[in-house]
Formats: sequence, structure tokens, C-alpha cells
Amino acid sequence: MEKVCFGIDIGGTAVKVGLFNAEGTLLNKWDFATKKTGNGKDILKDSAEFIKDKIKELHLEEDSIVGVGVGIPGPVKDNGEVLELANLGLGHFNIEEEMRTLTGLKVKAGNDANSAALGEYWMGGGKGYRNLVLVTLGTGVGGGIILNGTVLAGSNGAAGEIGHVLVNEDETNTCGCGKKGCLEQYASATGIVRLAKNILSETTEASALRDKEEISAKTVFDCANNGDKLALEVVEKACRYLGIALSHIGQIIDPEAFVIGGGVSKAGEILTETVKKYYNDNVMNALKNKEFKLATLGNDAGIYGAAKLILA
Amino acid sequence: MEKVCFGIDIGGTAVKVGLFNAEGTLLNKWDFATKKTGNGKDILKDSAEFIKDKIKELHLEEDSIVGVGVGIPGPVKDNGEVLELANLGLGHFNIEEEMRTLTGLKVKAGNDANSAALGEYWMGGGKGYRNLVLVTLGTGVGGGIILNGTVLAGSNGAAGEIGHVLVNEDETNTCGCGKKGCLEQYASATGIVRLAKNILSETTEASALRDKEEISAKTVFDCANNGDKLALEVVEKACRYLGIALSHIGQIIDPEAFVIGGGVSKAGEILTETVKKYYNDNVMNALKNKEFKLATLGNDAGIYGAAKLILA
Repeated sequence: MEKVCFGIDIGGTAVKVGLFNAEGTLLNKWDFATKKTGNGKDILKDSAEFIKDKIKELHLEEDSIVGVGVGIPGPVKDNGEVLELANLGLGHFNIEEEMRTLTGLKVKAGNDANSAALGEYWMGGGKGYRNLVLVTLGTGVGGGIILNGTVLAGSNGAAGEIGHVLVNEDETNTCGCGKKGCLEQYASATGIVRLAKNILSETTEASALRDKEEISAKTVFDCANNGDKLALEVVEKACRYLGIALSHIGQIIDPEAFVIGGGVSKAGEILTETVKKYYNDNVMNALKNKEFKLATLGNDAGIYGAAKLILA
Repeated sequence: MEKVCFGIDIGGTAVKVGLFNAEGTLLNKWDFATKKTGNGKDILKDSAEFIKDKIKELHLEEDSIVGVGVGIPGPVKDNGEVLELANLGLGHFNIEEEMRTLTGLKVKAGNDANSAALGEYWMGGGKGYRNLVLVTLGTGVGGGIILNGTVLAGSNGAAGEIGHVLVNEDETNTCGCGKKGCLEQYASATGIVRLAKNILSETTEASALRDKEEISAKTVFDCANNGDKLALEVVEKACRYLGIALSHIGQIIDPEAFVIGGGVSKAGEILTETVKKYYNDNVMNALKNKEFKLATLGNDAGIYGAAKLILA
């Protein structure tokens, strides 16, 4: 029987589960709602039960299952220790040990943003680069770093927290993390909308953005692509901050490529090209001309990466 | 016979050579002037001859010599490839292959700032931390990153170029690298003197700095330690920029410790404490309270690290 593994991506609203073969083919995927009861511990029980059901249902033989990879929305140490998962109501515990006990399978866990980076490296937009940085532009800004083909977890599992790199010392609004001027305040979907509203309120200049019932990151990029001046200003500003943050990463770790994912990345080339311009403006010559790619796995990046965690 | 190795640190003015045993004891050290003739290739010939002479002089048996580690002032790829060493007049070549041919010994090369970080990790201020960042505050600002006990070289050998991280978008003066607002323009010895002169020229306020015949980074820190208000302003400003740059590094790689070296680090606690304050102001909670240490190997960090390169 061919070797398979499970990749689980635990999120705040849904748990995604993928069944993969060792070559990285996604054989099947499912999801179910995240249950936050039992101090968050029910999430692990639910996930374990779900996997055991699937093993039975699909008649998987035990020795064909390599194990289970799990991505969770918080820092995880290399040994599986989780210090806190505030979102899910979980405190200090070892997620690998608990899941191993619940499933009887080998378990490897990692941070979800790092797992997504591993997924994009393995089977997505970062294929072919052994050193890359994934930046996920969604509601927030997440990041994951792959060095020599493995995740950089950091000494407390908090490496790759690109969203909270300081990019604007003059910001007066507070970020979700409690600091001011974080990248997430400008380059996330929410941040782009905020920038747009600010720019619209500062001038009476005409803009297609004013005709929209609701402004989203998508409408901003759509209007910019149609040549709308104020929308272009917003795009320049968001991409400038992102390009500067990536320039810091370039100066520090010298990766081969940056892969941009998350909902905002649907903007495509206007995003990658504008970010690249500001990146190149702010790095030394030896660090210019990195590859800027779009992520390709979408919401499945997490399950791909989780699977790779256990296969690696 | 006990196993030994050579650590060579090639600099713009001098070549330093250390003889180490495998436990990291520096058995002997020497240096000679850097000869820039022969398109820089004479440096390698000189170094090889020097080592061969020492082997003869000290009656070292060939099979007791593990090899030669070499640190050079420029980017080196993992395979020993050097793209350019402008300072030394050297173009594209493989330094490991050339030195191997010249000495008949095993050779491993690395960037000098990265080697210094490896030295401080191995036997200096970073001992005990497997993930650390060395920042060297000298004429310029250099850096080296150790992850899991090994050097992060980066995809083009340019990782750890902390001195050229953008920290001030409003700077009008150009850095040696051609950009504006690099950390090096504020936190190097030269940068601190520049900051001091700027602050002195902007006000007529009394300051002990005005009585000095020549201002150096040392006089700035000495005056600050004596409570001089303008000198304290300079220290705050330099340390704020350094703290911000280190906050970027913290958010990106989550190390255990920052080790500060170079001439400026002789300032001691006032430097580490002020930098730590600005670091903590600018990172997420999970990344606060890293260790801030002073380097202890001084100018020998490079030969220690070069030796560790070949022993590793």
C-alpha cells in the first residue's frame, strides 16, 4: 500500500484535513468547524477522532500511514511545546505528545504560517527555491521562512512574524499586537482598506473608490489597475511598506525568493512588481533582484505544509 | 599529537592567523600586512606561505592538522565561491579551491562578520546560545547570524548585512553602500561621531563634548556616562536606531541572544541597556526579553570563527 500522511491545519473557525501521498499529491481533503469548548482541548480530540474515522472509512493500513502533521495558529517550539494559543483558549502544553496519545500515530507540529511556507516551498509558488520567505496578506500579515528546505521556527517558535515588523514610526493607531506602525497595519486586507479610507478623507479629489458601496483590498487593486489615481496611491503606499519590510528580511537572511500569498495576493502582478521596486530601492546591490512569486496553493498551503512536516 | 587547525582572518590592512586545538584553545597567533598586489591574489599566496612556514617552524605533523579556516571581508557562498572582493581587488573565484591548492590542506571559507559571530558563539560572549546575532560596531556595522550552531550564509553569502538595514527614511546623506538611512550611518563609530557633530551644530547648549579636541564614539559614551545631556541624546539616538534594527531581526528570526562587539561595544552596559530598551519597545510580547551580551573576543573573534569553520 502506498505511504500516506495527514496534514491538519487548525484555524480559528475551521479545521482543515488533507490526505497526501509521500510525493505530495493531495488525495483527499475535508474540513469541519473548530469547537472551542473544553479549554480548546476538544479541537485536538475532534481532530484525532476525525482522522481515526477516515482511516477506518478509507481502509488505510496502519503501517502505510507515516503520521500526522499539524499546523496551529501560534508559536510552537521544535519539540512540540506550545506556550499559549490565546485564540483557541489553549494554555501551555505539548501538542505533539497529546496528539500522539490521541491518535497512536507519529505527530509533528508547527506554526500555521510556517507550515504554509513549507507547503508553498514543497508544492506551490516557491517550488525550486530552497531559501524563501512566504508573506501571507490576509486579514492580518503572516510570514514563514524556509532555509535550506526546512522551516525556521526560531528559539521560541516565533520566527517569521513579519506582520509586526515596525515600518512607520509616525503611526498613531495601535496594531492588534499592541505596538504602533506594524506592517500589518498597511499591507493586510484590513490595512489596505484603512489606507484607502484615510487617503479618501484627506482630499476631495475624484476617485472610482468613492462610488463603491464598500471598499475592499480587491476594489482598491481593481481601481488601481484601471488607472485610478488615488487607488494607485494606496497601492504604492501599501507596497512601499511591504517592500521595506522585505528589504529588512533580505538584508538579514538573503533568501532566493519571496512568495506572496493570502487573499490580497490575488491582485497579482501589480502587487509583486510594486513590492519588488521598493525592495530593490532598499537593499544593497548584492541583495537585489530576488524572485518575487505569487503563492499557488491558496487555503490549502497549510495542509500541504503540515503534511510535509511529518514527511520531512 | 593533538589535533590543531589554523584560523585566518583576512582584513583590508592585516591578515591575522591563529593556531587552535580542537577544544578552541588559541595556542598561538600572528599577523602580517595585507599585500594588495597581484590583483589581490598575493594575499592568498602570502597566507599559504605563512602557514607552511609555521607548520615547519612548529614541527606540526601533517595528519595532526585538521585544516584551515578563512574569513574574508565579503560574501562567500557555501561552496567557497566568492563573487567579488572589491576591497582587496579580487574578482570571481573559489577561495577554498585556491587555498587548498596552495596549502595542500582542507580549507573552509566564510564571510568575516559571519566568522566573527561563529567565534563569539563558540568561545566568546555568545557561548551557551545556539541561536544568536552578532552585531559589530566598528568603523562600519557588520553582523553575523548563528542558527542552531551554524552560520547563516544566505543564498548569495550576503546574510547578516545588518549595517545596511534601512532605519531612517528621512536621511539625506548617502551611506557607503549607495543607499540612504542605513543603520551604519548612526550606530558605527563614524556614525556616532556624525550624530554628535550634528547635534552640537544644531544648538548652542553647553556640553562637555565641545571641549574635546576630537570627538570619538568613546568620548561620546564617556560624556554620556558622566551625565552630559547632549552626549546622552547622541547615545539615545544611536541606540534607538540599533534597537529598531535588532527588533526587525527579532521579529524575523527569533534568536536567543544579541551579542554586541566592535570598538563601540567597549561602552558596555549603557550601550546594551539602551539598545535593549528600544528593542523591547518594537517587538511583539513573544519576542521581548532576549539576552543582550557584549562580545568578549575582541579582534580575535575572526580567527576563532575561522578555526571553528574548519572544525565544525
